[in-house]
Amino acid sequence: MNPNNNLKYYPLNEIANAKIHGRTDLSQQPLPLFWNGSAIEINATGTELWIEVEVDFDFHEPWVAYQIDGAFIGRQMLMPGKHKLCLFRNMFPDNAKNLRFYRELQAMSEDINCHILIHGFYSDGEFLPVKDRPFKIEFIGDSITSGEGTYGPEGTHPWVPMFMSASRNYAAMTADALNAEYRLLSQGGWGIYCGWDNDIRHALPAYYEEICSLGLGEARKALGGGAAHDFNSWQPDIVVINLGTNDNSAFNQPAWVDPETGISYKQRKNEDGSFHPEDAVKFEDAGIAFLQTVRKHNPNAVIVWVYGMLGYDLTPHITNTVNRFRIQTGDTKTYFLHLPNTTSETIGCNFHPGLKSHEKAAAVLTEYLGQFLYN
Amino acid sequence: MNPNNNLKYYPLNEIANAKIHGRTDLSQQPLPLFWNGSAIEINATGTELWIEVEVDFDFHEPWVAYQIDGAFIGRQMLMPGKHKLCLFRNMFPDNAKNLRFYRELQAMSEDINCHILIHGFYSDGEFLPVKDRPFKIEFIGDSITSGEGTYGPEGTHPWVPMFMSASRNYAAMTADALNAEYRLLSQGGWGIYCGWDNDIRHALPAYYEEICSLGLGEARKALGGGAAHDFNSWQPDIVVINLGTNDNSAFNQPAWVDPETGISYKQRKNEDGSFHPEDAVKFEDAGIAFLQTVRKHNPNAVIVWVYGMLGYDLTPHITNTVNRFRIQTGDTKTYFLHLPNTTSETIGCNFHPGLKSHEKAAAVLTEYLGQFLYN
Amino acid sequence: MNPNNNLKYYPLNEIANAKIHGRTDLSQQPLPLFWNGSAIEINATGTELWIEVEVDFDFHEPWVAYQIDGAFIGRQMLMPGKHKLCLFRNMFPDNAKNLRFYRELQAMSEDINCHILIHGFYSDGEFLPVKDRPFKIEFIGDSITSGEGTYGPEGTHPWVPMFMSASRNYAAMTADALNAEYRLLSQGGWGIYCGWDNDIRHALPAYYEEICSLGLGEARKALGGGAAHDFNSWQPDIVVINLGTNDNSAFNQPAWVDPETGISYKQRKNEDGSFHPEDAVKFEDAGIAFLQTVRKHNPNAVIVWVYGMLGYDLTPHITNTVNRFRIQTGDTKTYFLHLPNTTSETIGCNFHPGLKSHEKAAAVLTEYLGQFLYN
Amino acid sequence: MNPNNNLKYYPLNEIANAKIHGRTDLSQQPLPLFWNGSAIEINATGTELWIEVEVDFDFHEPWVAYQIDGAFIGRQMLMPGKHKLCLFRNMFPDNAKNLRFYRELQAMSEDINCHILIHGFYSDGEFLPVKDRPFKIEFIGDSITSGEGTYGPEGTHPWVPMFMSASRNYAAMTADALNAEYRLLSQGGWGIYCGWDNDIRHALPAYYEEICSLGLGEARKALGGGAAHDFNSWQPDIVVINLGTNDNSAFNQPAWVDPETGISYKQRKNEDGSFHPEDAVKFEDAGIAFLQTVRKHNPNAVIVWVYGMLGYDLTPHITNTVNRFRIQTGDTKTYFLHLPNTTSETIGCNFHPGLKSHEKAAAVLTEYLGQFLYN
Repeated sequence: MNPNNNLKYYPLNEIANAKIHGRTDLSQQPLPLFWNGSAIEINATGTELWIEVEVDFDFHEPWVAYQIDGAFIGRQMLMPGKHKLCLFRNMFPDNAKNLRFYRELQAMSEDINCHILIHGFYSDGEFLPVKDRPFKIEFIGDSITSGEGTYGPEGTHPWVPMFMSASRNYAAMTADALNAEYRLLSQGGWGIYCGWDNDIRHALPAYYEEICSLGLGEARKALGGGAAHDFNSWQPDIVVINLGTNDNSAFNQPAWVDPETGISYKQRKNEDGSFHPEDAVKFEDAGIAFLQTVRKHNPNAVIVWVYGMLGYDLTPHITNTVNRFRIQTGDTKTYFLHLPNTTSETIGCNFHPGLKSHEKAAAVLTEYLGQFLYN
Repeated sequence: MNPNNNLKYYPLNEIANAKIHGRTDLSQQPLPLFWNGSAIEINATGTELWIEVEVDFDFHEPWVAYQIDGAFIGRQMLMPGKHKLCLFRNMFPDNAKNLRFYRELQAMSEDINCHILIHGFYSDGEFLPVKDRPFKIEFIGDSITSGEGTYGPEGTHPWVPMFMSASRNYAAMTADALNAEYRLLSQGGWGIYCGWDNDIRHALPAYYEEICSLGLGEARKALGGGAAHDFNSWQPDIVVINLGTNDNSAFNQPAWVDPETGISYKQRKNEDGSFHPEDAVKFEDAGIAFLQTVRKHNPNAVIVWVYGMLGYDLTPHITNTVNRFRIQTGDTKTYFLHLPNTTSETIGCNFHPGLKSHEKAAAVLTEYLGQFLYN
Repeated sequence: MNPNNNLKYYPLNEIANAKIHGRTDLSQQPLPLFWNGSAIEINATGTELWIEVEVDFDFHEPWVAYQIDGAFIGRQMLMPGKHKLCLFRNMFPDNAKNLRFYRELQAMSEDINCHILIHGFYSDGEFLPVKDRPFKIEFIGDSITSGEGTYGPEGTHPWVPMFMSASRNYAAMTADALNAEYRLLSQGGWGIYCGWDNDIRHALPAYYEEICSLGLGEARKALGGGAAHDFNSWQPDIVVINLGTNDNSAFNQPAWVDPETGISYKQRKNEDGSFHPEDAVKFEDAGIAFLQTVRKHNPNAVIVWVYGMLGYDLTPHITNTVNRFRIQTGDTKTYFLHLPNTTSETIGCNFHPGLKSHEKAAAVLTEYLGQFLYN
Repeated sequence: MNPNNNLKYYPLNEIANAKIHGRTDLSQQPLPLFWNGSAIEINATGTELWIEVEVDFDFHEPWVAYQIDGAFIGRQMLMPGKHKLCLFRNMFPDNAKNLRFYRELQAMSEDINCHILIHGFYSDGEFLPVKDRPFKIEFIGDSITSGEGTYGPEGTHPWVPMFMSASRNYAAMTADALNAEYRLLSQGGWGIYCGWDNDIRHALPAYYEEICSLGLGEARKALGGGAAHDFNSWQPDIVVINLGTNDNSAFNQPAWVDPETGISYKQRKNEDGSFHPEDAVKFEDAGIAFLQTVRKHNPNAVIVWVYGMLGYDLTPHITNTVNRFRIQTGDTKTYFLHLPNTTSETIGCNFHPGLKSHEKAAAVLTEYLGQFLYN
């Protein structure tokens, strides 16, 4: 290879014009990308650009992807260790290339050592300012928002990182279409009150107020994941909650027994297949509590609870949650919206929404959110 | 024209194999088609077929359309008087052609003399049995279900019959996709509690229990429109209610004064733009009452309230209506579903959903209703 | 019906602002619409508009359709006799409605008495000028250009007028997309050298120089169909020839015996399935002769021979025809273009291209022709 | 990372069940992937799989991509050196995963040291047989077949490897749709008689008979690229030639002067913009010679010359080439087909066809080639 002797290393924390997407601890160097869709965005002149990343994990390897001027370019798995990845070479030197390097894999509650850390860039150009997008949207969700099944073949498959993504994801599509920044907080299998298997530890709300406290071991703690999130630092115009799919599932699954207490948890159905009211209210109360939390930290945001991409069953109780919250609090900026269910034509891998389902959902959601941003 | 001397006239009430679609008084001869989508369906052998129809109206002329073997063939306006319309000629004589002749125009509350009456057919063949579809769906709606704007150019246009249809209509598309019979009961501008302009007379529920008692003058009465509908004669598997769009509009319109009583009616908004709770509850109570009526007459049906094709604003109160009804009555077979909003790409004439919007709504609704019919 | 006493009758030849589309004899009153797509276009103010048409035929009834401001409104069969058809009612009086009333059925060589004659209009408004489109395109074709199969259900069906159209037709779609006037000259089953069944009388070129001399009996002659077409009166920017599909078919069909001479005609294939060169050259020579005729009458037009919507088999000899013509004459404004073949997903009725196939062909052709008109 | 101690190394030449796609020298170990789309395909059981590749280049870095069970998974740039790339981890061990690892970048005539070599795999499973596809298609082309512009943003961009691909490529899409193996031989900027800039050295035909003799330096020679291709080893059912786009460009570009001989080369146009016949015949003669070569080595193949994705200008001379070849040789299994031109809606990066254009071309080509394979 003909060497490029003009490359110079820039630690990330010395690049004033770098734009950080996603909740993180900005004081860290190297900087962790905790959530899928978390990204470094730069406008780099020069002919060549490399990124230096460091990776660790026990079981679930992280995936990354990147785009140039908004166009998807590459996607790959990363093994433990420090890596220099070349992102482009031999480009025209003068114009700035907008580069967005992002995490494909959701934050992994099951792998306390799964991390992506950004050290810096090697460049033979400069870093120009990145234009701010005029809006901000936060998405809180489950496997759908983790892009589960957006890569990979149809059929039964193991639950592995390579099939999740931010690159084929209704949330990113919606934000791009609306010219908005976005952040994702999502975890496959989790819910509002409990996870898909009645495990009450797997509820997103308990983790909303920290940067990334899922699977919080020593490593993640050291990286700042357990610290309180500074909500003032990034006030979204809209918060989208896409939860309930796993809460619904719990009604159809066996009980879960807490290994520490021995207590059994089970969301029950009546004999006629309807939701047991005592358990439905547990879901609703958890939902209202979460809406209160979200509202507390995002006092001016529109909040939209979306639901439907993997079935509409829990609609009565999600709408009742939203309605009860509106009535109790007088909060009229909190809404409910159905997204279209996934069909045999739009299904992806692992029985999850595929690319086409995400595209259809994004179209409906973009139209809906647009009324708040562009009117 | 070379004459066809083999044609023979068959009064409709002598064609045992004719299938009548839509609420009507079956004892009438000629037979009225009251609602859009109301149809005569026959399987006719022979080379040629004519239909004899009689039409009257004061102001709003009715439109009809027909299809052969499911394919759209013709659509036209009809003037007052008796007409012989040729539907096909010179066809292969032996095989049966499935012919469906239907009303495009909604029942017209504003024109008490607007009627289409079917006298009979001229045929040189036979009438073979029409295969029953295995399911039945009833749609209750407003201008959306009347197909308002599905024909005609984009832009402002007068409110005239030629722009309404059953031929480009999410309800017919959904029923066809699910292999279901369908009936429509719809009226542009009407709602659950009141019409788009706060006129409380323009609420569909008051007319649900008769055959077609909208605009009930002497003529319609004589045709049987005012008679009680025999719900036992046609029990739908699913009732779809697509109402609320005009109830929402009323909140944004001036008060309506009842000309008889002088009483003023107005659905109010609060200063912050939210719905006034006293008026929202009027809507909800009217909705619950209507659900009770629908349930009473359709004890085994799935009831789905759909909403969204012209905006989602009233979602909190429609979902609350459905939820309150479910809780009060324990009725777990009543559901709510959003249909996708109309966008600039799917808009039709008169600011109403166009063909593409109906197609998109039908796709979502077909998927949704299919779970009840095909599982 | 409440009468409209303001309607006034206007014979077509007294409406200076009426725009006539399609080859016809402008001195005729009533005016014949000979070819499918032939139309009367007016910009009418007023609330109401009627057209007076007269129809005759022996066997094949003509169909008509109309659009308002470019949007399809109605389509129907017409029986022999004089008819007053109402086209719109109760519209806003002041603005002009652009109305286009057109023939759906091809000129019928098999029915010498099949005619549509336009007498005039009844209006309560005025006729304002119709804007000229900046371009003109002439299409010469066979059943594809006659829109055969664009209406009607998939499957085997008789060859009847109701399945042909200009309303679902690649030619009209292309012209509309390019903002061009268009004229069609087409006949199902016909070719360049012979028809689908080797009948050498069924070749379009012999009829190109008259207004409409197909099936020229007394009636058509009296209507001016046999008169020489005045090419100076309408010089197209582009002539599209979509012929060859039936010439190809002839190679696969039995011989045709001329009933008058007893001479047998047969386009032969070799044993290996390839075209017999002696017969291929007959096709090519007929094609070159036709290109010479077209060029003679349209000295400045771009000529594009398109082919493929029902199979690509004759491509070698169509391209060779075009190439030989270019070389022999130095004519570099004559081109060949494939249009996409019809597939099982785009097929219509009677084994012909359906609406989707016409849409796909129009997309390719629009892009192609656009380079000549908009560069 | 939790180590997987069950991984075992398998040199590629010891994996009997590996399937090699693309022309190469099978005696090499490591095995070079010369052309874009060249691939290693295996059916691997086990939980984990790594590939060992070696890369070198001077200027243009190669890109690779891979798919599992037909679904796109990853795509990345490779730097010089030996790399172990993990392709999947933590999968269910028992079932076989079909893995296809392929070269995205075309063979680089401009970089004599640009190579991808496959050493072998690390697996904790077995390699099961790969099912043969029933058909074989060879594609010979230019930048279109090199997938130029299928990645990357719209607008002007440098000519760099990352924007080329086999993963978004009409050729691969067509072969997949037809269940056919495929091989690509393509080079951006090259033609039949000369390159886009009149450089007569940049003509594909001169390189057709060797494995990969483009940019043949010491390295490529040592890897077997210069050796004669054994046509008997892989006889395609169809050969698709997609050349002519650059030959057409040469008519619009300045002369090229051979640096060795000082001779100037220029494909000329006449003053009226038409092709100069002397130069057109150079193209045609080169085309006929190439068809003879292709036919010689593929005596039973259907040969289809496709053209149009970047403009149709050279159609007269490409069709004349095919027609002259058919007439001279009596070869009736050689055809011409237009593919749809790229439009502003289907354009990709670097003014080349984008993903949508490749999809549209593949749809037309799949339908066309299907008639030869499935009838």
